[in-house]
Amino acid sequence: MNKQIILKKRPQGLPEKDTWELQSNPVPEPGDGEVLIQQHYISLDPAMRGWINDSKSYIEPVKIDDVMRSGSIGKVIKSNNHPKFNEGDFVTGWGGVQQYVVTNGDNWYKVDPNLASLPTYIGTLGMPGMTAYFGILEVGKIKEGDVVLVSGAAGAVGSIVGQIAKIKGCKVVGIAGGEKKCNYIKEELGFDGAIDYKSENVHTAIKRECPKGIDVYFDNVGGEILDAALARLRMHARVVICGAISQYNNKENVKGPSNYLSLLVNRATMQGMVVMDYAKDYGKAAREMGGWIAQGKLKSKEDVYEGIENFHETFLRLFSGEKMGKLVLKVIEE
Amino acid sequence: MNKQIILKKRPQGLPEKDTWELQSNPVPEPGDGEVLIQQHYISLDPAMRGWINDSKSYIEPVKIDDVMRSGSIGKVIKSNNHPKFNEGDFVTGWGGVQQYVVTNGDNWYKVDPNLASLPTYIGTLGMPGMTAYFGILEVGKIKEGDVVLVSGAAGAVGSIVGQIAKIKGCKVVGIAGGEKKCNYIKEELGFDGAIDYKSENVHTAIKRECPKGIDVYFDNVGGEILDAALARLRMHARVVICGAISQYNNKENVKGPSNYLSLLVNRATMQGMVVMDYAKDYGKAAREMGGWIAQGKLKSKEDVYEGIENFHETFLRLFSGEKMGKLVLKVIEE
Repeated sequence: MNKQIILKKRPQGLPEKDTWELQSNPVPEPGDGEVLIQQHYISLDPAMRGWINDSKSYIEPVKIDDVMRSGSIGKVIKSNNHPKFNEGDFVTGWGGVQQYVVTNGDNWYKVDPNLASLPTYIGTLGMPGMTAYFGILEVGKIKEGDVVLVSGAAGAVGSIVGQIAKIKGCKVVGIAGGEKKCNYIKEELGFDGAIDYKSENVHTAIKRECPKGIDVYFDNVGGEILDAALARLRMHARVVICGAISQYNNKENVKGPSNYLSLLVNRATMQGMVVMDYAKDYGKAAREMGGWIAQGKLKSKEDVYEGIENFHETFLRLFSGEKMGKLVLKVIEE
Repeated sequence: MNKQIILKKRPQGLPEKDTWELQSNPVPEPGDGEVLIQQHYISLDPAMRGWINDSKSYIEPVKIDDVMRSGSIGKVIKSNNHPKFNEGDFVTGWGGVQQYVVTNGDNWYKVDPNLASLPTYIGTLGMPGMTAYFGILEVGKIKEGDVVLVSGAAGAVGSIVGQIAKIKGCKVVGIAGGEKKCNYIKEELGFDGAIDYKSENVHTAIKRECPKGIDVYFDNVGGEILDAALARLRMHARVVICGAISQYNNKENVKGPSNYLSLLVNRATMQGMVVMDYAKDYGKAAREMGGWIAQGKLKSKEDVYEGIENFHETFLRLFSGEKMGKLVLKVIEE
C-alpha cells in the first residue's frame, strides 16, 4: 500500500492536525513511458505553508484532496519503457508526501548515492541549497569584503548562504534562535558573528556585530528582524527577499517593513527570488557546491525524522525552530 | 534687508506656524571669489519635511536657527572676483528660503532665462524634473510597451515621470487626488488612465486601469497606495521608491508595505533613489528635457505663490494637495 498525506482543509494560522489526513491507497502502476518511484525521504520546507493557502502566488495552491506537495528523493523500482530512468536509479523531484509516486520523469533528476547522502541531495544539493546559492550570488551579488547578514542562519537555506558568503570572502553574521544554534553557526560553520533573537535585542545586536552596517541582508524571516536589518543598511545595499517564516502563520495581515524608506536613504535594493527561475543552472551549482563539500569548505546538516505518520508534528518543527539544518522526513519503511 | 525663514523647532506631525520664524537681517557682502545673489523663486518640495527631522538620512538635517534649506533661482547682483559668474547672470542652486544669499558658487548653475521661465528651471529643469528623469529611466528601466503606474501624478515629479514614460512608448496610469487633477493628467498631459484616490477604491481602480498588471510603479506617496500597487505587480516588475509623502507627517511609525512579499512572488525589485547621485548627468538630462519641451512633448506646470512671509501656508499646500504641478514661492519684492 502507498501511505499518503492528503490535504483536507486550508488552515488559518498554524496548521492543526486535521489539516491533513493519512490515507493508504494501492501502489499505482506506471503507464507507458513512466516510472514507479519508492520514496525514501521527503523534504520539509517553510514554503509548504504558503502552498496550502488559496491565494495567487508563484505556484498553484495544493488542491483539497490532493497529495501534499513536497520535494523528495527515492529509487526507481519499476520502469515502463522510460527513456532516461532505469530500475535501481536514485532520483529526486517533486514526489509529494507519500511513499510511492508514478511520474513521466519531468523535473526529476538522477543522483549518485555514492557521492552524497540522500538527505543531502534534497538539502544542500537540492532546493534549499540552490536557493542559497542563486540568492546570495545572483540576487545578493556579494563581493569580497561585503558585510553579509542572514536570518534563519542555522536553517537549510541560511546556513548555506552564510557559508557561501564566507567562501567568497565576506564578513558573515547570522541570526538564529537559541544558544545552541548560535554556537553551531560560529563554531562549526565559521560565521564571524551570531545574534540570538530569542535572548537579545536584534537592533542592538546588529549594531554590535555589524558596526559599519550591512551590504547584503538575506531575509528568510520577515517581521521585526527585517525592520532591524533595514535600519542598518549601507549605501547601495541589497536585501534578498527569500522568505518570511515569521509571517506565514499570521491570521492577520503580513507586517510590512516600516523601515523600507531606508532603501531610499541608502539607494538600496530589495529584490524577491524564487529558486525555480534558476533551474537551467542547477547542475552547475550542484557541481560547484559538491566540490566545496568534498573540500570541507561547505558543511551540510540534515535533521532526519522518521515515519510518514509523523508528518504533521515534524512539519511544525519548521515554525517552532526545534530542528537544526535541513528538516527531512524518512518515509520508507524497512 | 534680507528676509529669511529660520528653523526654530523640530515639529511632530504637520509643521505648525512656529516651526519657523521670519527674520530680517542685513544683506550679506560677498567675500573674495564669492557672489551675492538676489533670489527670485524658492522651490517647495515634500523632501523639505524630512530635512527638519533630527534623524540620519541622505542629507544632514537643517540645524535649529539656520535658514531653511531649499532649492532656488535668482540673479547675481554683485560678484567679488568670482571665476564663473558675472553680475546679471541668472543662477540656480541651494539658496535656502531667503531673499539674498552669498555663495562661492559650488553646486550653482547658470541658466538662460530666454530659453525657459525661472520657475521651470527649478521645476521640470530642476530637481523635480531630474528626479523624474533618472528615477523612471535609470531605476525604473522602462521600455516600450511597459505598463507604468505613478502616484502623485499631477505633482512636480509625477507629472514628468508620466510624460517621459509616454514619450518612451509606455502605457501610463496616474494616481492623483480629485477630479481636476485627474482630468489634467489625462487631457492635458496625455496619460492613458487616471485614478482619483480621494473618490475611488485604489485597489479596484488599479485592476480596472491596469488589467494586465504593472511593470513599473513609481512611488511618491507610500502608505495604502504603495500596498495597492504591490498587489498588482507583473513578473520582474520594478518599484521606484522616490518618496512617501503620505508618511512624512506621521507621529507614529511609517506604515510598512504589507504586500512586500509580492516582490518574491513576482521576482520584483524595489529600489530607492536620491537625485543628487545623478548630478554629473544633470546637464545631459536638462538638454534632452528642454528639447522635449520645445517640441511640445513635455509640459511643465508651476503653481506660483508670492511673498516669503507666506512660506508656511504655501509649504502646507504640499501636503494638503492644494496645488497643481510644481509648487514655487516668489520671494523677490518688486
